[in-house]
Amino acid sequence: MSARKTNLGSFFEDFAVGQVLQHATPRTITAGDVAVYNSLYGPRFAVQSSDEFARAVGYPRAPVDDLIVFHTVFGKTVADISLNAIANLGYAECRFLAPVYPGDTLRAASEVIGLRETSNRASGVVYVRSSGRNQKGETVLEYIRWVMVRKRDPLAPAPAPVLPTLAPRVEPAALGTAVPQLAMAGYNFALAGAPHRWGDYAEGEKIDHADAMTLEEAEHQTATRLYQNTAKVHFNLNEQAQGQFKRRLVYGGVVISLARALSFNGLANAFHIAAINGGRHVAPCFGGDTVYAWSHVLEAAELPGRSDIGALRVRLIAVKNRSCAAFPLNDALGGYQAGVILDLDLWLLLPR
Amino acid sequence: MSARKTNLGSFFEDFAVGQVLQHATPRTITAGDVAVYNSLYGPRFAVQSSDEFARAVGYPRAPVDDLIVFHTVFGKTVADISLNAIANLGYAECRFLAPVYPGDTLRAASEVIGLRETSNRASGVVYVRSSGRNQKGETVLEYIRWVMVRKRDPLAPAPAPVLPTLAPRVEPAALGTAVPQLAMAGYNFALAGAPHRWGDYAEGEKIDHADAMTLEEAEHQTATRLYQNTAKVHFNLNEQAQGQFKRRLVYGGVVISLARALSFNGLANAFHIAAINGGRHVAPCFGGDTVYAWSHVLEAAELPGRSDIGALRVRLIAVKNRSCAAFPLNDALGGYQAGVILDLDLWLLLPR
Amino acid sequence: MSARKTNLGSFFEDFAVGQVLQHATPRTITAGDVAVYNSLYGPRFAVQSSDEFARAVGYPRAPVDDLIVFHTVFGKTVADISLNAIANLGYAECRFLAPVYPGDTLRAASEVIGLRETSNRASGVVYVRSSGRNQKGETVLEYIRWVMVRKRDPLAPAPAPVLPTLAPRVEPAALGTAVPQLAMAGYNFALAGAPHRWGDYAEGEKIDHADAMTLEEAEHQTATRLYQNTAKVHFNLNEQAQGQFKRRLVYGGVVISLARALSFNGLANAFHIAAINGGRHVAPCFGGDTVYAWSHVLEAAELPGRSDIGALRVRLIAVKNRSCAAFPLNDALGGYQAGVILDLDLWLLLPR
Repeated sequence: MSARKTNLGSFFEDFAVGQVLQHATPRTITAGDVAVYNSLYGPRFAVQSSDEFARAVGYPRAPVDDLIVFHTVFGKTVADISLNAIANLGYAECRFLAPVYPGDTLRAASEVIGLRETSNRASGVVYVRSSGRNQKGETVLEYIRWVMVRKRDPLAPAPAPVLPTLAPRVEPAALGTAVPQLAMAGYNFALAGAPHRWGDYAEGEKIDHADAMTLEEAEHQTATRLYQNTAKVHFNLNEQAQGQFKRRLVYGGVVISLARALSFNGLANAFHIAAINGGRHVAPCFGGDTVYAWSHVLEAAELPGRSDIGALRVRLIAVKNRSCAAFPLNDALGGYQAGVILDLDLWLLLPR
Repeated sequence: MSARKTNLGSFFEDFAVGQVLQHATPRTITAGDVAVYNSLYGPRFAVQSSDEFARAVGYPRAPVDDLIVFHTVFGKTVADISLNAIANLGYAECRFLAPVYPGDTLRAASEVIGLRETSNRASGVVYVRSSGRNQKGETVLEYIRWVMVRKRDPLAPAPAPVLPTLAPRVEPAALGTAVPQLAMAGYNFALAGAPHRWGDYAEGEKIDHADAMTLEEAEHQTATRLYQNTAKVHFNLNEQAQGQFKRRLVYGGVVISLARALSFNGLANAFHIAAINGGRHVAPCFGGDTVYAWSHVLEAAELPGRSDIGALRVRLIAVKNRSCAAFPLNDALGGYQAGVILDLDLWLLLPR
Repeated sequence: MSARKTNLGSFFEDFAVGQVLQHATPRTITAGDVAVYNSLYGPRFAVQSSDEFARAVGYPRAPVDDLIVFHTVFGKTVADISLNAIANLGYAECRFLAPVYPGDTLRAASEVIGLRETSNRASGVVYVRSSGRNQKGETVLEYIRWVMVRKRDPLAPAPAPVLPTLAPRVEPAALGTAVPQLAMAGYNFALAGAPHRWGDYAEGEKIDHADAMTLEEAEHQTATRLYQNTAKVHFNLNEQAQGQFKRRLVYGGVVISLARALSFNGLANAFHIAAINGGRHVAPCFGGDTVYAWSHVLEAAELPGRSDIGALRVRLIAVKNRSCAAFPLNDALGGYQAGVILDLDLWLLLPR
């Protein structure tokens, strides 16, 4: 009889620390992907929107949105890592290392760097370091994420737990390799949409991004398929209807991209995401939800050796179905308030 | 304390006649934008559909749909002009001046040319002349529009009213600069989809375009975001649910593009919109509405010095949820019949 | 009075055997079309996904998905053949003859090769052989389909019936002209997503593709408009609500593309559809349906003179709203089980 041909995904027992996975489906990113992304989120950052603006500040042409790169690489890891995931638990040490342009081809690989069975023995947490490389072999993106994955058999022996040490944040000295030396004389703040430079933001400052978008089922499905991410929880209502949520779950990356696009209003010149220090998909998001966002500036840091750009460490919070005028985050018990769906810790780069 | 970082939009009091606004977010138009536009409206005009057809008639390659140019420029004006708009009242003197090709970058600017507070003192009408220029500094589009914008404070003093003189129509001599001299021997009417030339249309002729499309929420949101137009009335159901309409308002430009795409059936060789003489978004359109269209040929005009193309002045009417077989327009009292949502006065160019 | 300008479509009486139709609206296929297609179906075949992968195996760059070619050509025939269709009855002798790349322009033509009035005299079956050619005059696609088309007048005389002889399958010797000699040393099975070669599949093998997608109204409309297919049954809810189904009918090609994308899971290296031997849209599909798919390997065939690729004749079945774990197809009476919506007979090519 022929071997099984379908991929049912890996279970917790299938992973081993040190295992390296070459993910399938390399992808050439094109202007088409950029247009579809724009139509889904409407981001307005000028560097990515206009070849002319990008060239004027020092890029050879407009780079693609950093999150297109992130979702593309992430999408390639799903088939090998998270088909049987219960929850995507977190991110760390995510660095955007090099710009990506239309015509570049990305492939992804992951190394298993940690494993820990959960106390109920029905699942375990898998830690991976994933990377995306372009056709020249350059690493454009690296990140660590950890996922709760089902076990095939709860009675299967637990592996010795290995927990990686995760840096709480990427060091400023490691930021900015994806940004060429900016020709500041060419940086037109009127065309960029706001006059605010790196130095105009204060540590502790909170910004309600004001705008919001109601997400439709077709939109989140389309957004997720764009990256060839076919995890069934996003697509199969017939099956989801039998489960806990009754509805299709929105891919967390859709919420990240929505929040990033909304954050233009208040952070118009934060043209580059240099790193993601951490992130939690706090609560699920569904079609019909209206997503709002606000940002908390945690830290301002110079980049050693760079006088053109500075870094802001920003906590980007996405909230559903309520305004962010009161900057909703934690409740009295230290948990998250109702409606908070994303808590992301970013390093953003702005012109100085 | 840091300066406010978010854009809450301008109110009526913020405008002054003569003020010039350089709008943000220049945009490189790509084949990706063309594909997304095609997927939203399905236009079938051969000149824009096929590089080969376009070259055969005298273009260097297929130009992008005129309305992609219009919406892109319009979208850039929203953040500065209409975030606090109550209603988009009208258009005039809109001229499509030069072809736009994938790879071109557009930016927009506007001059305030009129102001008039409304009698209830809670708002005012702002008249602007907007233009779109490409990366070579060529003006590709110009138009006047006027918008009813909220006042921040009804008690704020009214400015002296200034009402611009608006031409009722663009003169035929000013039409056609975006169309190269057509190589008529290369114009294949079978590939174009119909044999009807400029001379086959009679003044007074009415055409029911027959086809119709039911508009989904995801579609109008996607269509509007494509142009980086993020006006909240189109996107925020959470907020709209509290307001007058209870639902998201469809961006009027979506109705224009739907009607234009539907008008191919009957005006297949009207390959270029040379000008918009006027237009009214007569009534709102919502997700779930089915849009029909009909056209009334008002006038046929030669273009001085051109024997390859002629102009038809056409009233393009979009109607929702009812057929246009009876050419619905005005009711017995001179207002619009129920269902009429768009009344657009265009100059279209056809081969002679 | 001016001639009628709108196309109401042809009725059965308008067709004559031997008639040749040059269809309108030539279309330049772009990377934008590929991106929109990817966002609608999420196909993961590496050859079409990555220029690098395609070049490594012998293509000059990534060809566009075979079904983009099919739907583009099909879409161009609709206005002349099936505006007044009652049902799309079947396909035969469909051959994918040459690769298509972004930048290629396709046009379509059809020859009427058969006619047969139906016994109720209210309609008739029209058989056409359609072809798509690129800008170099090369035929990239050919197929036969037959459609039940309304008669304008049931009393109009019936034409002498002409029934074409249809080959039950395309001969293996006729397959593979669209695939360059594969450089097998360059075929990276890890990047392709599965290790299974042509020889790993056995005649009679059944594969449940496991994944499924719930189809939204916006998605099927967008997918269909992408190909400039504007047949009203897919778009006009206002009219459909008055008819038999009460709802918009999903274009059968959407189901074909969904099933093909789902089939990656199990047939990851079946990178090319060389031919469609036959196909039936067994039952209608509507927005809200969840589409599953399974495949039955009917035959394995060598291609004479080719040692790089082999052919599998595969029956691809799409089913709605139920899993394919039990390989649903026929009921006890020999008809189709409830839920079966597509029965497609394909020749797929895989590396040997």
